[in-house]
Amino acid sequence: MSGLGPPSLGASRFRGPLSRRRFLQLAGAFGGSSLVFQALDAWGMDMSSTRSAPPPLSGSGQGKRVIILGAGLSGMAAAYELSRLGYETPILEARDEVGGRCKTIRGGTEVRELGGGTRRCEFDEGHYLNPGPWRIPSEHTSVLHYCRELEVPLEVLVNSNPWGWIRLDGMEGPLSGRRLRQAEVTADMRGHTTELLARSVHQNALDLELSAEDKERLVAYLVHEGHLANEDAVYRGATRRGWTVPPGAAEPGQPSDPHDFLSLLQSGLGTGFPPRWGPTGTVFQPVGGMDRLADGFERKVGHHIRTSREVREIRQDEDGVRVIWAHTRTGETGVLTGDYCICTIPLTILINIPSDLSGEVQRAMRGLAYTPSGKIGLQFRRRFWEEDDGIYGGYSVTNAEWSGDGHVTYPSSGWNRRKGVIQVYYGHGGDAVRVSAMSPEERIEHGLSIGERVHPGVFREEFETGTSFFWHLEPWSLGGYASWSMEGRQNHFPRLLEPDGRIYLAGEHVSHLTSWMAGSIESAWMQIERIHRRAAQESGSARGDT
Amino acid sequence: MSGLGPPSLGASRFRGPLSRRRFLQLAGAFGGSSLVFQALDAWGMDMSSTRSAPPPLSGSGQGKRVIILGAGLSGMAAAYELSRLGYETPILEARDEVGGRCKTIRGGTEVRELGGGTRRCEFDEGHYLNPGPWRIPSEHTSVLHYCRELEVPLEVLVNSNPWGWIRLDGMEGPLSGRRLRQAEVTADMRGHTTELLARSVHQNALDLELSAEDKERLVAYLVHEGHLANEDAVYRGATRRGWTVPPGAAEPGQPSDPHDFLSLLQSGLGTGFPPRWGPTGTVFQPVGGMDRLADGFERKVGHHIRTSREVREIRQDEDGVRVIWAHTRTGETGVLTGDYCICTIPLTILINIPSDLSGEVQRAMRGLAYTPSGKIGLQFRRRFWEEDDGIYGGYSVTNAEWSGDGHVTYPSSGWNRRKGVIQVYYGHGGDAVRVSAMSPEERIEHGLSIGERVHPGVFREEFETGTSFFWHLEPWSLGGYASWSMEGRQNHFPRLLEPDGRIYLAGEHVSHLTSWMAGSIESAWMQIERIHRRAAQESGSARGDT
Repeated sequence: MSGLGPPSLGASRFRGPLSRRRFLQLAGAFGGSSLVFQALDAWGMDMSSTRSAPPPLSGSGQGKRVIILGAGLSGMAAAYELSRLGYETPILEARDEVGGRCKTIRGGTEVRELGGGTRRCEFDEGHYLNPGPWRIPSEHTSVLHYCRELEVPLEVLVNSNPWGWIRLDGMEGPLSGRRLRQAEVTADMRGHTTELLARSVHQNALDLELSAEDKERLVAYLVHEGHLANEDAVYRGATRRGWTVPPGAAEPGQPSDPHDFLSLLQSGLGTGFPPRWGPTGTVFQPVGGMDRLADGFERKVGHHIRTSREVREIRQDEDGVRVIWAHTRTGETGVLTGDYCICTIPLTILINIPSDLSGEVQRAMRGLAYTPSGKIGLQFRRRFWEEDDGIYGGYSVTNAEWSGDGHVTYPSSGWNRRKGVIQVYYGHGGDAVRVSAMSPEERIEHGLSIGERVHPGVFREEFETGTSFFWHLEPWSLGGYASWSMEGRQNHFPRLLEPDGRIYLAGEHVSHLTSWMAGSIESAWMQIERIHRRAAQESGSARGDT
Repeated sequence: MSGLGPPSLGASRFRGPLSRRRFLQLAGAFGGSSLVFQALDAWGMDMSSTRSAPPPLSGSGQGKRVIILGAGLSGMAAAYELSRLGYETPILEARDEVGGRCKTIRGGTEVRELGGGTRRCEFDEGHYLNPGPWRIPSEHTSVLHYCRELEVPLEVLVNSNPWGWIRLDGMEGPLSGRRLRQAEVTADMRGHTTELLARSVHQNALDLELSAEDKERLVAYLVHEGHLANEDAVYRGATRRGWTVPPGAAEPGQPSDPHDFLSLLQSGLGTGFPPRWGPTGTVFQPVGGMDRLADGFERKVGHHIRTSREVREIRQDEDGVRVIWAHTRTGETGVLTGDYCICTIPLTILINIPSDLSGEVQRAMRGLAYTPSGKIGLQFRRRFWEEDDGIYGGYSVTNAEWSGDGHVTYPSSGWNRRKGVIQVYYGHGGDAVRVSAMSPEERIEHGLSIGERVHPGVFREEFETGTSFFWHLEPWSLGGYASWSMEGRQNHFPRLLEPDGRIYLAGEHVSHLTSWMAGSIESAWMQIERIHRRAAQESGSARGDT
């Protein structure tokens, strides 16, 4: 959490010194979550991943054992690749199931949380909530690689939708608290601002170093981009913002009138979306739930995995690694020895496990904060967002208090069917802590209070059942995802990339793609390449010694 | 075709009188097709459809017969709704198959065309080209209604993709003929222009009637929209334009540098996409091909349809309608009589059928032009656009000569599989006529020459087999879709909406949603409502007469 302060803003030469409050009003228009995203952006964290295939390794790992701690994507990807080279790759997993945060909650799933009991999800068959990762951007070629390799069928996740609603309460002007289509805001803001710039060019108000012809080209672009009228470059609305009466057979259609520029500015709607950070290209989801990807790995490496094994100690010397485990239910203990270890345990947990990790690494681990995070999903007996509002996928935007990222996200599967599950809350940081402190029933009620801002009446009427999940209350995660501060990235992150003796760390936290599955996979790829190189060297020198 | 002249431009007060050539250079940057789209836009034609359900009709049509001409979507929708009310709804269809332009070409499909032989498509199983309609925008609630009702499974069609390429040849400046990601152009043009406007606001160069606070809000919006730096509102690139080196495990990622504003302006790339006209929300396709929708109707009304029946004469008097047909292969003829007739035959064909249609309607029919149109689809043995270029769906843009809409459109099904079919050409008007005049082999070669502009080398290397289809060469269509001119809409279209005696016209041409399936369905809904009302009246008066 401490890693998630506001981004450095500096003093704007346009705006004078900008208070944090002012910044929120102007640029954020939201609670904590948009700041989180902006902060991440400012720290250079983003989407595209470097690799589209595992490192091309040759040679053999025969006779070597790499102990893998954690059967999440990182651990299973490491086991899959190393076992194909001949390594022995036993995996210890504390949970009773594989996949880690690559998880799906469906009807029958039992959710346990710290300080709470066990709840059973009551969704109908075919409906689900992915409480952890839920999107595979096409930029994440490493994840797509395994979807191909493991034959995990994909479908498109509609990541944004101009027909989704946006409603911001507590703003200034006549649009505050009104529900608009996102398309209205986008089209009108672009229309008004491109018209303004076209006027500025025409008035020669800017000392532009452009020829007359290039100015014409600029205006032609502005006309195109803003949907301005060809004849005078004025914005009078655009069909892409929606119709007052849409065209039909006999009906030519009545265009809609744009919102007033000043009202829009005062409402803060223009900066309400899309987030500056996030996928821009095609986004996928596995058909049926994100855990289909974990299932794919399990089909390949399941026989290496021992679940319900909590790691109690991690020891190493010059010759090897020794891991002491205990069965989480029977209490049975055991020792696993190996040549190397890939440890994918979240640092929230690892930091409390007695180990021979060096003081340097222990200090580096303390340089990383984990962001609390969680979701609420609600099942509805009717897809009113599709049937009544014509919203097929994407999300609506609210700025309700404690509404996480403020997005009411519609399902991208089961199109046109009867029921559906809406992800009504995806919160981070203090927001997530606050909501997680509510009782399960209060969380559902909270979710309903968010959704009814954009779907008044019907949201409660059609609600059937809900579930919630918070990663900081999950005993084997104790946090949502790694949040490196600038300082942590500079001073601590580099140490965690490097092996500590025979122990190699992997997982989303050991990457520049934190919180994404691509980070966990690519960190595994990085470490198996290093281990394989070292194993070859050590075999060579061992032979030399003989 | 005559209906497809350039839109009325007027004289721009910025640019002085604008020649057609100049307009093309500046605003279009393409051949004929973008003009087509802009013209359509200028005529108020667009996407959203009025109705989401058929008219709620009660009462009975028992004992009445409505002859339906044409088993396309319009005719089948009319038969489906009317037969549920008790009407007899015999359908005559000239083709050997149902669906009309709602057609899919797959391996084994035989394509016949006027003045050419019969060709067999050699696509692998599971691959296809939709030569006619291929997209169901979420705005087309009438089409979605039947997908729900007829249980036609849908999947998302990725309608645009920032990672698609754009390459414009023959432009000015250093970017002419270079292949760029569309994301680079979009991000840089928005970045440069929002920076320009922010500077203009700061310099008080515009006499804006905005308070200091609202100017701050405007700048905050521009910073958000253009991805400008928070501290000085300057554009220095954005992650959404792509990375020089994307982030990975150990790699923080190297951002990419924006293109120079002047070079971009001179290249015309900024106005190259997206089209001003077209779907903006979620777009669907039936899983497996567009004809799955026609199949759905056929399951319901197939028993009413008599295929291979060409209409020879359409006669009517005060009491009824009489249609004389001939079997297209056996020559057998017959007469069908009924109370009313819904005629969905394209006017290209209907205009030459002897009939009792009034002189008024005959004149109105001559007021409509049909746009020639067609497509070329190529199958590749490897999905190099996904594997090599990270392009999952959407399209790349070229301005190759005679390249139709200039879009090289990637498949939105079979993600991550081995093979795929690219729609490399979708042309309209004179462009389509020119390409259709080529031999089948020349058309394939033409398609390859378009695609290799954005996929040099690999496009030819991985090509396997191709197909092409042109609606103006299809004997029962003789055109792609209706293109109403402004003048035609005013003077002729209204007459065609109204019944001519007992004959009612329907089809995409009898709508403001020409070229879309929604137009054909909604025109049918309009006419069945009228017929049902009239039938009730005539029954009433008939009873009254007794």
